[in-house]
Amino acid sequence: MKLPLGYRYSAVYAGIRKVRKDDVALIVPDAPASGAAVFTQNRVQAAPVRIARWNLTKSRGLVSAVLMNAGNANCATQTGDRVALACCDAVANHLHVPPVQVFPASTGVIGVELDAHLIVNAVPDLVAGLAPSGFEDAARAILTTDTVMKTAHSQVRLKGGTIRIAGMTKGSGMIQPNMATTLGFVMMDAAVPPAVLAAMLAAAVKRSYNRISVDGDTSTNDTMLVLANGASGIQPNQKESKKLEEALTQVMEDLARQIVRDGEGARKLVTIEVSGASNEEAATQIARSIANSLLVKTAIAGSDPNWGRILSAAGNAGVPLDPNKVDIDLQNVPVCRGGLAADFSEPDLKKKLDESECLIRFVLHGRGQGAARFWTCDLTEKYIEINASYRT
Amino acid sequence: MKLPLGYRYSAVYAGIRKVRKDDVALIVPDAPASGAAVFTQNRVQAAPVRIARWNLTKSRGLVSAVLMNAGNANCATQTGDRVALACCDAVANHLHVPPVQVFPASTGVIGVELDAHLIVNAVPDLVAGLAPSGFEDAARAILTTDTVMKTAHSQVRLKGGTIRIAGMTKGSGMIQPNMATTLGFVMMDAAVPPAVLAAMLAAAVKRSYNRISVDGDTSTNDTMLVLANGASGIQPNQKESKKLEEALTQVMEDLARQIVRDGEGARKLVTIEVSGASNEEAATQIARSIANSLLVKTAIAGSDPNWGRILSAAGNAGVPLDPNKVDIDLQNVPVCRGGLAADFSEPDLKKKLDESECLIRFVLHGRGQGAARFWTCDLTEKYIEINASYRT
Repeated sequence: MKLPLGYRYSAVYAGIRKVRKDDVALIVPDAPASGAAVFTQNRVQAAPVRIARWNLTKSRGLVSAVLMNAGNANCATQTGDRVALACCDAVANHLHVPPVQVFPASTGVIGVELDAHLIVNAVPDLVAGLAPSGFEDAARAILTTDTVMKTAHSQVRLKGGTIRIAGMTKGSGMIQPNMATTLGFVMMDAAVPPAVLAAMLAAAVKRSYNRISVDGDTSTNDTMLVLANGASGIQPNQKESKKLEEALTQVMEDLARQIVRDGEGARKLVTIEVSGASNEEAATQIARSIANSLLVKTAIAGSDPNWGRILSAAGNAGVPLDPNKVDIDLQNVPVCRGGLAADFSEPDLKKKLDESECLIRFVLHGRGQGAARFWTCDLTEKYIEINASYRT
Repeated sequence: MKLPLGYRYSAVYAGIRKVRKDDVALIVPDAPASGAAVFTQNRVQAAPVRIARWNLTKSRGLVSAVLMNAGNANCATQTGDRVALACCDAVANHLHVPPVQVFPASTGVIGVELDAHLIVNAVPDLVAGLAPSGFEDAARAILTTDTVMKTAHSQVRLKGGTIRIAGMTKGSGMIQPNMATTLGFVMMDAAVPPAVLAAMLAAAVKRSYNRISVDGDTSTNDTMLVLANGASGIQPNQKESKKLEEALTQVMEDLARQIVRDGEGARKLVTIEVSGASNEEAATQIARSIANSLLVKTAIAGSDPNWGRILSAAGNAGVPLDPNKVDIDLQNVPVCRGGLAADFSEPDLKKKLDESECLIRFVLHGRGQGAARFWTCDLTEKYIEINASYRT
């Protein structure tokens, strides 16, 4: 699928990672783009999160460059703000744009000083390497414990022509975004004012990045940025904006699902569908509680149709729940009806649970219509292995 | 240490477990005892939880027998209430006590019908076997995935003589009690009215069972019961009651720590001490958030002094927190000062983290005096192994 018009990308190895693998990347729209972003709700926030929020406010939502690095979160560091500002300045100087139009984002280990020189010295090469074809290089440069590159594309046909959307993301552990994500960058070539873009992003993030969890931990660096540079020459009207928002949501849902599928140590992508709750928020809370239950996640890992754990996890969601009105299906097989065991073949279902995708359907026969989808993964020994020695 | 006066215990194998190991147990005070209990806050509650609460209310806090079983939670079952009531009736008939003075408690798998006949048929043997020396048999009969028996003792010297306290508990996974626990039973021989006993229990549970987490899951069967049968002939006055409450808290903290130390797959007991928070509740929330972070728990498993994960987990506790005012010590070694890395020897600290007990001290230099202790365990591959195939 074709990339959005009017963006160039590049990535180089600046020496931040211990292994020789690109660790800084740059995204540059041909002209300043509208930008909208959401950030982590963690009370501990990395320097680039603070600076990105500040810059976006000062520039009134204009972005001329996105500077990303992996290997160091630039969080809980003495020199954090100075480092982030120095890096933005270097990019601004080389591109001849205002520093506040540079949007920084970092990911990696927390509490280790980031050497600004590494990035500043890499900026000339980064700028020299900018090309429309650098999209995947940039997408790969931001990965940490991820095992696969994560990108998604879409296009929307409007009266004036076609809008293209492309996104990249990273993330595998410390995943339970709250109004934001790990790192995610979505580019589109529509002309959309920053305020409209921010509303689109808010709606899209709610049903994509805010509906996933690998391990229930929200990081200090979560950042989700959407850019709209107008390079297509098309300015959607109000009705078309809705269509664009739908496409943006699709791309972000696609990216979010890729994160969970690549969850640390995960072998299975688990989709949880809750319906019949009093409202969407209650449905989401129930789904999130199921998604974060270690006992549910380990049962899925073991292909064990232990629906009692699903029911128990739902009971801990903090929302009213009448267990006698609960139906649960696993892989479309009824396992619980009215809060009681349904009659099913355990060997057959175990085989179905061996598949790489699992579907948990949780229906509350209440009076409400609240529904939500949520994604998680199974919890395997490999997660422990990865995280018991992340830094060494 | 001597057991409280005036209690008899017994345990037998009733055929509920697949393996031949005692699975029902009985505790009988010589005369009806004052009883106070707290139960799970899970919205899905097992039949014995409902019946126990009902009986305790109807009997106005009098307990003549405690009937416990392992191997089946009697939760999310069609016949749940009928089974629990039938079992209580059988005990009441054999002991010639009112059925509402029988307190039932179950633990084990959820969603599988419990055959009342198995327990009813075991009651004659249970009653015949009652003896003061049966304390440990009963304590062993309630274990499930536990690897060790969990009991605790204390005595309090009052003006009138000595009060003895003894408790037993079970629990290893699905552990994050909320106003209650897994199963816990504490007997004392003081004469204490039910209302006073209930207040003592509420104070004690807050700082013991409500301060532990193995995996963040609250079970459907959590039950904590305290009995006071007056067999010592001593009725504490108000000041002495405070002393008794202190001893009860000690016993319950001892039991709660034993649960976490025996957490599924755990190799290390982790104590988290938070101080300087705005109040005790805020300190507890921060400690709980650290205790439940899979990334902290896996770092401890790997003896990795990754304090950034501790800081990040605290930032997700949902309470205000200024990272610049945070100090963190691991095993009494300063690792973070004012939110930044302290200077420490990583190899030395790694060695210290290999010990079987870990201490995380988290100091907030705010204006508050709120402090809390919390206990958790490390998360190892073994937890996954145990829970991926619990039912098979």
